[in-house]
Amino acid sequence: MLFSDADDSLALVADLYELTMAQAYLHESMFAPATFSLFIRNYPKDRSYFVSAGMEDVLRYLEEFQVTASDIDYLRSTGIFADDFLEYLRDMRFTGDVYAIPEGRLFFADEPVLEVTGPIIEAQFVESFIINQINLQTLIATKASRCLTSGQGRGLMDFALRRTQGIDAAMKVARSSYLAGFMGTSNVAAGKRYGIPLSGTMAHSFITAFEQESDAFEAFVRSFPKIAVLLIDTYDTVGGAHKAAEVARRMESRGERLRGVRLDSGDIAELSKAVRHVFRKVGLDYVNIFASGGLDEFGIADLLERGAEVDAFGVGTKLGVSADAPWTDMAYKLVSYNGRPVLKLSPEKRTLAGDKQVYRFVDSQGVLSHDVIALRDEPGVADAEPLLCKVMQGGRMVEHQPSLNDGRETFLDEFARLAPENKSISDPAPYRVELSPALRALQEKVEREVVAREL
Amino acid sequence: MLFSDADDSLALVADLYELTMAQAYLHESMFAPATFSLFIRNYPKDRSYFVSAGMEDVLRYLEEFQVTASDIDYLRSTGIFADDFLEYLRDMRFTGDVYAIPEGRLFFADEPVLEVTGPIIEAQFVESFIINQINLQTLIATKASRCLTSGQGRGLMDFALRRTQGIDAAMKVARSSYLAGFMGTSNVAAGKRYGIPLSGTMAHSFITAFEQESDAFEAFVRSFPKIAVLLIDTYDTVGGAHKAAEVARRMESRGERLRGVRLDSGDIAELSKAVRHVFRKVGLDYVNIFASGGLDEFGIADLLERGAEVDAFGVGTKLGVSADAPWTDMAYKLVSYNGRPVLKLSPEKRTLAGDKQVYRFVDSQGVLSHDVIALRDEPGVADAEPLLCKVMQGGRMVEHQPSLNDGRETFLDEFARLAPENKSISDPAPYRVELSPALRALQEKVEREVVAREL
Repeated sequence: MLFSDADDSLALVADLYELTMAQAYLHESMFAPATFSLFIRNYPKDRSYFVSAGMEDVLRYLEEFQVTASDIDYLRSTGIFADDFLEYLRDMRFTGDVYAIPEGRLFFADEPVLEVTGPIIEAQFVESFIINQINLQTLIATKASRCLTSGQGRGLMDFALRRTQGIDAAMKVARSSYLAGFMGTSNVAAGKRYGIPLSGTMAHSFITAFEQESDAFEAFVRSFPKIAVLLIDTYDTVGGAHKAAEVARRMESRGERLRGVRLDSGDIAELSKAVRHVFRKVGLDYVNIFASGGLDEFGIADLLERGAEVDAFGVGTKLGVSADAPWTDMAYKLVSYNGRPVLKLSPEKRTLAGDKQVYRFVDSQGVLSHDVIALRDEPGVADAEPLLCKVMQGGRMVEHQPSLNDGRETFLDEFARLAPENKSISDPAPYRVELSPALRALQEKVEREVVAREL
Repeated sequence: MLFSDADDSLALVADLYELTMAQAYLHESMFAPATFSLFIRNYPKDRSYFVSAGMEDVLRYLEEFQVTASDIDYLRSTGIFADDFLEYLRDMRFTGDVYAIPEGRLFFADEPVLEVTGPIIEAQFVESFIINQINLQTLIATKASRCLTSGQGRGLMDFALRRTQGIDAAMKVARSSYLAGFMGTSNVAAGKRYGIPLSGTMAHSFITAFEQESDAFEAFVRSFPKIAVLLIDTYDTVGGAHKAAEVARRMESRGERLRGVRLDSGDIAELSKAVRHVFRKVGLDYVNIFASGGLDEFGIADLLERGAEVDAFGVGTKLGVSADAPWTDMAYKLVSYNGRPVLKLSPEKRTLAGDKQVYRFVDSQGVLSHDVIALRDEPGVADAEPLLCKVMQGGRMVEHQPSLNDGRETFLDEFARLAPENKSISDPAPYRVELSPALRALQEKVEREVVAREL
């Protein structure tokens, strides 16, 4: 139903043209190595950086790439393909090399976050899957990091499962937001698969299923005396707070402490202050106030500016679909074939020819200063860190990849060293990215040649 | 990697609170039947209808619902749950009844597109998965139907795979757009799974991999003489058209016909006219012109208003993420428990209490006139069609569900009978939806009771 049919492989998660081009390459005996660069052309509104995410899924997909017998039968049934090509597909594996900017690292527009080098049929075939996974996970990790900026240290939890665009997205949203500093997720399957801490409260239906709101509160804390967070806005938020306070007082008499309450509607800035007042008045300062309901970095910033008394935020739909920027202009473009650097001239869609490396410069305080995109084989740049690491050779991962928790630490460390003006959630200052003189010279040379040949 | 680990079930694709509430219900011995209504509260901008989609996935999920031993082990490891609850989960299946508005039918804000009745633990547990799948598929089918309106009969193809939010979304975008009248998809896996016709051309990388653009064109038509669509904007669109015309003339000498060319950048309205002129001048009127590149209903409408000479559109990213409206405000709310109608009063988030039916009225020409939301057990409304059909009883699908092609025909028939003013892509006229007197009276009664009890 989702992607679990045993006969289906991920290999066919490809655009038809990957297959038709592959057949044409086969028929032309074009097996030379090609390099494709994965990069984002432009920033979505209010962005000036991206967070690398999704490498793990891509590397596993490449290692396991295989077209099944059932896939071949289907492809034959379409009548589109030649028999020799279907035979070729049956034995095809991914045998190429991959360079990547590791998960959790920051990257910027035009920088290759991944470069794939391999026989052109293979390196082309995997285009759509690679874009799909890295676009989504980078998009969400970037959005989540913006919530982190707005949250000013408050806990953030992924509540997006119900409105993510499908189940794969639900899993990747939980993972990517955790990578970018979230504390946990409400998605139990993601908790299981990725080892992410679980977080959750109760639904309005729980309240309405009981004759009275107080009955619902009492039942929940009986079952979960240590972790109960009561949802108090079903009928009236301040009224709900008074009832929750009574429950908390009764818990105290049993040696228990109410963990918190959640607000999910209304003017949360004002209501949270009123609720805090209710709890403070009766000595329940320890009861945490959680807020949710249509929040993202903009909503969180607004609430905190208005003095909201909120300890942690549940961030759902707008994180889960990256609502203000639901896609990036990520592209996977051929940059060299058989040693020859290539580019296209399509308006607004130019590519940078040649296999590349990206270097990062920091100032004496460790703050990120600027990046330089260079040719991969030009001499290393002094005092700068090369970001693209070889992660796959001959179709095999070269070493153990960083874990999700490693990536999260990497992100938190580097994000703290990105200047505040580069991570403002509105109109951030652009981060400086330069082309090396050799890369720039190559572009001009290749462009001159293309213009002379084709125009 | 995606959702294919054999030990993982879809059952845990749930928010933590579904499980904590379930444990509390178990501990309170609350096993009475509950009804949850799935509906969309408000229209996203420029929408005034929705297309029902996603029922098939939901019904299969409900039939197959089962928590695995590995899931139980994980849940135990979290330390959150009581042993008796974990034992209960092990044997839990979905045993409820489901009513749904069939796939391909139109529905409107506030109308329940699905109602689930079952023991409250079961009916609550499945909330997040149900919203996730129907929200996404309805969102995309609705967006695709808007492209159909703009396309004025031209062929539309789903090219979204690379930028959908994950792989599940890629599959569901292909299926939902086909349901809403698209001709095909570029997603080969979706073609295989759903039997959707495949569509595709070639990438710019294919052009740049060859020494010259003409070489690339010749190679492609050699391999695919019957279905070749040449991408002509890599260096210069009109120059590319001249080269494609030469290829087409040589094909004619072999008794072949070039199927078409694709434009993917630049001012497509003007370029398509120039390209048509190139082909007409040399008697190649049959060569189809395909356009793609950042299109959706707005872009297609703009191109056609400007007289673009385009025969078919490839619609990608903006369809695949429903870019102008990437989510709906879809909710799954408890409307009755143990025979008692319930609602919540949260501002802007009110629910309609009671189990329901939706009736559709058409005028003498068959044009959709208005709908009435009624109580399920009130006497049927004369001359109106009840839309919610019983699709599951006791956890089993009641009959063979309509196929994707059935749903597509249903959609095309009904969509043709929706008045033009209701399907305008900008500022459409609202469609009239009324509450039956009995439903309205019930709301007032339940609200009075809640206010008296809780406030």
